[in-house]
Amino acid sequence: MVDSGSNGAVPSTPLLKDELDIVIPTIRNLDFLEMWRPFFQPYHLIIIQDGDPSKTIRVPEGFDYKLYNRNDINRMLGPKASCISFKDSACRCFGFLISKKKYIFTIDDDCFVAKDPSGKELNALEQHIRNLLSPSTPFFFNTLYDPFRKGADFVRGYPFSLREGVATAVSHGLWLNIPDYDAPTQLVKPLERNTRFVDAVLTIPKGTLFPMCGMNLAFNRELIGPAMYFGLMGDDQPIGRYDDMWAGWCSKVICDHLALGVKTGLPYIWHSKASNAFANLKKEYNGIYWQEEMVPFFQSVKFPKECTTVQKCYIELSKQVKARLGKVDPYFNKLADSMVTWIEAWDEFNPSENMGAAAAEVPNGPAQGK
Amino acid sequence: MVDSGSNGAVPSTPLLKDELDIVIPTIRNLDFLEMWRPFFQPYHLIIIQDGDPSKTIRVPEGFDYKLYNRNDINRMLGPKASCISFKDSACRCFGFLISKKKYIFTIDDDCFVAKDPSGKELNALEQHIRNLLSPSTPFFFNTLYDPFRKGADFVRGYPFSLREGVATAVSHGLWLNIPDYDAPTQLVKPLERNTRFVDAVLTIPKGTLFPMCGMNLAFNRELIGPAMYFGLMGDDQPIGRYDDMWAGWCSKVICDHLALGVKTGLPYIWHSKASNAFANLKKEYNGIYWQEEMVPFFQSVKFPKECTTVQKCYIELSKQVKARLGKVDPYFNKLADSMVTWIEAWDEFNPSENMGAAAAEVPNGPAQGK
Repeated sequence: MVDSGSNGAVPSTPLLKDELDIVIPTIRNLDFLEMWRPFFQPYHLIIIQDGDPSKTIRVPEGFDYKLYNRNDINRMLGPKASCISFKDSACRCFGFLISKKKYIFTIDDDCFVAKDPSGKELNALEQHIRNLLSPSTPFFFNTLYDPFRKGADFVRGYPFSLREGVATAVSHGLWLNIPDYDAPTQLVKPLERNTRFVDAVLTIPKGTLFPMCGMNLAFNRELIGPAMYFGLMGDDQPIGRYDDMWAGWCSKVICDHLALGVKTGLPYIWHSKASNAFANLKKEYNGIYWQEEMVPFFQSVKFPKECTTVQKCYIELSKQVKARLGKVDPYFNKLADSMVTWIEAWDEFNPSENMGAAAAEVPNGPAQGK
Repeated sequence: MVDSGSNGAVPSTPLLKDELDIVIPTIRNLDFLEMWRPFFQPYHLIIIQDGDPSKTIRVPEGFDYKLYNRNDINRMLGPKASCISFKDSACRCFGFLISKKKYIFTIDDDCFVAKDPSGKELNALEQHIRNLLSPSTPFFFNTLYDPFRKGADFVRGYPFSLREGVATAVSHGLWLNIPDYDAPTQLVKPLERNTRFVDAVLTIPKGTLFPMCGMNLAFNRELIGPAMYFGLMGDDQPIGRYDDMWAGWCSKVICDHLALGVKTGLPYIWHSKASNAFANLKKEYNGIYWQEEMVPFFQSVKFPKECTTVQKCYIELSKQVKARLGKVDPYFNKLADSMVTWIEAWDEFNPSENMGAAAAEVPNGPAQGK
């Protein structure tokens, strides 16, 4: 399907070629893919067109993709489409839902190939795959960072019983150039750029929350997919720019409960353009206030031991959200309901047992690339 | 006191010049100090001579130091000297006890000045001081690492109420060249060298334990000093090379309880020489077995809220060690008793209230440098 002869830089057997989808939410032509061609072309792209569905999004030649717009989402999900955000990059989670692959990499369309300090272009996707395919170590901190990396190991004092690690569910990558700051920090430090290349991957310890950014993110769909719901943001919602944070907090507490690993650090992408700080402030102001309640909530979430699957954990979490965050704002009641709808949609599109192979073809197929 | 005219490289006003002691345990001539001269010469050194007290240790000219051998330790502590290890670098904690300064930096005598990737020599002490003087963030992970570093900040999604951070008690530095591996890993990977310079400092999150290495370590004595007891190791003890681990686990659980921060990462030193793996195995084998009990123990330690000082926490910890680790091996009963002796000695040498200024002169002073 892919014209692999057209670009010499494509490696002969890219890792997980048939087991990974790249999900890209966008409102514009995807010229940014040109720079990623050597790395992305072997993979299937799921493009989620946000905003006006009548607009045509141009995708560079030679990529294997399917593009879904709002009409596709509404048609495919029916009434359950209400759980997918509109006019917010939170819509990307629709791509997670309908993928049939084991792994997902999602990236924003203003992210370009970064270079390491020697000037070498970095294959972000390959690093994510390496992160996902090697274990995590959430129960004890290794001071030389990822012990599974070449040239590193567990240091003296690291219990041997913990050295097998656990399966890695999430790989969170970082950004050179424009850092992922909130609106107040953007306003205060408009010129700050991230120029520090930190050559490390590390496991976020069990019990520790972090701000997960959706710009450059990969995960194992089979292990954690149902928790990667990006919430209700954007049009008609009182909040934006907390979609990835929400997914990060939900997925982290579930990973902690199910003994799955979450890594952060490499790979870097080059984040080209800061979003508008004033527009961001409008989207964020409720979130900035609410996160003071959300974070303590997630820090104290406990799951009963009957919660043995991500879906069960997520439904339980939706109940706790309603019970404990509903009083912060009625928005959280609506969000909790959407979390349930999301799981219903997930289960519809991902019949349990043998998820990858047995799933039926998606009905009402959307626009499709070569 | 210091002949500061003799070496041009000494900065005019080194940070914390009169508030920090450098503690060095050794059994040999301290020629390694020549390389550190530009960085260490302004500071007072506390040298703990381990082993045969009749041996003369040569200290390069121009350093301001006091040297203590076993005879000094026995004379100064009397019967309480039993809590200080002999023939093991654990003896370094005697230096922490008798220091009158607010900050301690301790380093091994086989550690040299490291270079950053550009070839610049790194002032490890200055980086430790910077780590100690800026806050830690143990309650939520910042994906761009230390938010107080130049060019970095808190990222989107980091609760504003947590951005003040907490006081930093410990700064744990790393090692290029010879990594701090246990004997089994040394045996399996005799040629592995750490060549990865990770340009990061990060807070070890609350609730997470780590293997603290004593080779390149700094801490705030006023905040955490009484927990920096390096245990009973070496001569007549069934274990070695767990001195720093013990101090690390004790101090981390106390820091977590008292809301103090622990950082790891920069600075690097150049660790020149691997210790003998066979000799290490003999010292470590009990520890390798016992750490499988020690780590779960420390992971589950809880302090009652009456434990409002490091001393109170440490005495409480000694009780829990006896109650819960005593059954692993009688060694832990002896260790628990020594923990109490250590605190008694600490309080004798560091009368509470106004510790730095009011402390009496140390009786029976030892060998002293210019």
